[in-house]
Amino acid sequence: MVIGAGIVGLASAFHIKRVDPDVRVLVVDYRFGPGHGDTGRSAAAFRTFFYSRTNIALAASSISFYKYVQEEEGFDLGMKFVGYLFLLTRNQYKTLSSILVELQRRGLRYELLDTGFLEEKLGIKASVTGDEEAELMGLEDIHVGVYVREAGIMRPEKLVDYYYSRLKEMGVKFMFNTRVEELVLEPKNKLGLPYEPLPWQEAMVVGAKTAKGVIRAKRKIVVAAGARTFLLLDPIGVDVHSKPKKRQVFAIKASTNELKELLYIKGLNEYNVAPMMILPKGVYVRPVPEENSFWVGVSDHLGRPFKWEEDPQPEQHFYIYGIYPVLHTYLPQFTNARPEASWAGLYDISIDSQPVIFEVAGMIVAAGTSGSGIMKADAIGRIVAAIYSGEKTAELYGGEKFHVEDLGLTKRRVEEEKLVI
Amino acid sequence: MVIGAGIVGLASAFHIKRVDPDVRVLVVDYRFGPGHGDTGRSAAAFRTFFYSRTNIALAASSISFYKYVQEEEGFDLGMKFVGYLFLLTRNQYKTLSSILVELQRRGLRYELLDTGFLEEKLGIKASVTGDEEAELMGLEDIHVGVYVREAGIMRPEKLVDYYYSRLKEMGVKFMFNTRVEELVLEPKNKLGLPYEPLPWQEAMVVGAKTAKGVIRAKRKIVVAAGARTFLLLDPIGVDVHSKPKKRQVFAIKASTNELKELLYIKGLNEYNVAPMMILPKGVYVRPVPEENSFWVGVSDHLGRPFKWEEDPQPEQHFYIYGIYPVLHTYLPQFTNARPEASWAGLYDISIDSQPVIFEVAGMIVAAGTSGSGIMKADAIGRIVAAIYSGEKTAELYGGEKFHVEDLGLTKRRVEEEKLVI
Repeated sequence: MVIGAGIVGLASAFHIKRVDPDVRVLVVDYRFGPGHGDTGRSAAAFRTFFYSRTNIALAASSISFYKYVQEEEGFDLGMKFVGYLFLLTRNQYKTLSSILVELQRRGLRYELLDTGFLEEKLGIKASVTGDEEAELMGLEDIHVGVYVREAGIMRPEKLVDYYYSRLKEMGVKFMFNTRVEELVLEPKNKLGLPYEPLPWQEAMVVGAKTAKGVIRAKRKIVVAAGARTFLLLDPIGVDVHSKPKKRQVFAIKASTNELKELLYIKGLNEYNVAPMMILPKGVYVRPVPEENSFWVGVSDHLGRPFKWEEDPQPEQHFYIYGIYPVLHTYLPQFTNARPEASWAGLYDISIDSQPVIFEVAGMIVAAGTSGSGIMKADAIGRIVAAIYSGEKTAELYGGEKFHVEDLGLTKRRVEEEKLVI
Repeated sequence: MVIGAGIVGLASAFHIKRVDPDVRVLVVDYRFGPGHGDTGRSAAAFRTFFYSRTNIALAASSISFYKYVQEEEGFDLGMKFVGYLFLLTRNQYKTLSSILVELQRRGLRYELLDTGFLEEKLGIKASVTGDEEAELMGLEDIHVGVYVREAGIMRPEKLVDYYYSRLKEMGVKFMFNTRVEELVLEPKNKLGLPYEPLPWQEAMVVGAKTAKGVIRAKRKIVVAAGARTFLLLDPIGVDVHSKPKKRQVFAIKASTNELKELLYIKGLNEYNVAPMMILPKGVYVRPVPEENSFWVGVSDHLGRPFKWEEDPQPEQHFYIYGIYPVLHTYLPQFTNARPEASWAGLYDISIDSQPVIFEVAGMIVAAGTSGSGIMKADAIGRIVAAIYSGEKTAELYGGEKFHVEDLGLTKRRVEEEKLVI
């Protein structure tokens, strides 16, 4: 049984069924369809341009698999390699330059775009010195653009469709509208005593209590409940070491000529579409060509609570005070732009922003995707399937071997991500 | 300002004041006196017999300091080196024997006590084969006892008294009955905008909101709120990566001759007092000679929720079904013994059962003591003081240097504890 029909649950079910075709798999989710939770609320940009070998292994193999699905299997995932454009201040560039050199040495490619090009081609206002508001805000000049082509945007609902349709072909069953209220923990050897499992008994997770009754798992239980995971694990005394934090996306129509020109920029990539842009202070601008709009957002850290919410809501003031002042300073095309739609979801943030995948008491937990679940989901699914099969290593798409304990809790070994912008 | 007058807050205030005598320190706590939270609910046994160098560094230096306080400063902490006696099954011993050899190589001393000695001297029932109840429960024979002399018991309220009286001499102020409701986060450079701190502003923790008003810190804020820490940090978006779990202690009077004989056992140590005994399945029996009783307990893992409770309560059924069946099987002296008192507290459990100590936004957090806060408090206080002073290393009592980032979140480097019994 897999709890959670988000992208991690789907990829896990897919790879378990792939390695063990005879097993009966049931996927349970409390929403009315697959990918209707935070998967569908994602900004859905992807990149393989990381420093951490862990990040690279998970993202590069997953993205290669998605590319294979789109190009070889012919299943459109809406993947467009429009690239990522990091717009760096002099200080950021100074901090990162040795890391960029190391990345190049490792074979990761990028191009430096100078401010003349950025201003002319993208209408970016690189020099903000003398702008009183910008100075008060502590905004610095953009010094250089780092353009990465092996990155882009995709459509999470199509990736969901891919796994979901494949899973149905394979005979996997789904139960939607079925909220797991709690996990059922029982002693391995029941004695019929009160208060079992007792501390001297070996306990196992054997099923899930739902509003529709208890579902008992024949084999293992996979918990892939995203930001809800801690709500299921805390009561049985397991700390997943990840917590939910709200993230917001604001959609801005390219309603002016300036915005249209930016969105459908010519010549930077084969799609003639703006890249995913990351401004100083972390504000991102994600092109959505099929909707003639941009999605903008920023990950706020201090002051944004770790908190579970059933239905997180976007805050208009967050756009107005948190994003817009940075956005229109560097991209004057957005002057006076107001979102015409917005939504919020939850990141499930782990200690090092890498997924947390472990087995305990017959239950496999895959959580803590920290905002990069979609671009890593296929690798996560393969690691879950390896744990399910009792393997110590998972073979990721493309053949790389991944030591599954590296993402566990007790022997966790994750390379630090130094490319933090 | 230090939030929390438990043992960690007291030791932190003490060492901050020691390294910076001119600083004005205020300790705030919501209870009516120092050490009235989980510090006072501890079973208060100590040992330096660990595998992990992290555990050894923290515990050995703290215990040496307490020994110095008791023996050189003449301040009685109720320390008695009655020893720890680990009672191991054959399987446990097999698993641990290579670790024990390694510990011996590192200079840690222990003695093996054979079952004949255990039975004769301590009245332990080592062989439970043939005992139907024991077999149903999966209890195995005790194969050997590992007796460690550099370990024992102490009185936490006396250690609290020590730090508290020293702090008052040093001029540190205390505010009791003062509950910190939330931490106050402000931008470093206030602009007077709504919803500050905004995501593009650098934010700092500058004070604490209490029922008695906002207390602003002149210098840094130390959060040493034990199991409550996450309640203060989650709302400002900082994950302390430790969570509370209830632990219970049951006090049993040595009312029979057999129990008295065990409690005041002759010749095992200079105090003629039973050692702290750890039975198979983790049930511990802690002598309390000054109260003519034993404290017994067990750390339950799966099935015991991670949960904050204002006033956790002991459960009589936990003793009856969780502890007693193991207790009376191996120590028949406890047959029919029922607790005459019991209480519960909260462990604050981190990812690797080691403390979590880090600085963020001008705030130093010391939490996650995971049930060994008292035996490590002095070292924790010195590490907090080193961070306060901007040092990369702390000098622990006895002179050992400790790299403070090793207990942080981002560059955490903790040696795994392999001596898990």
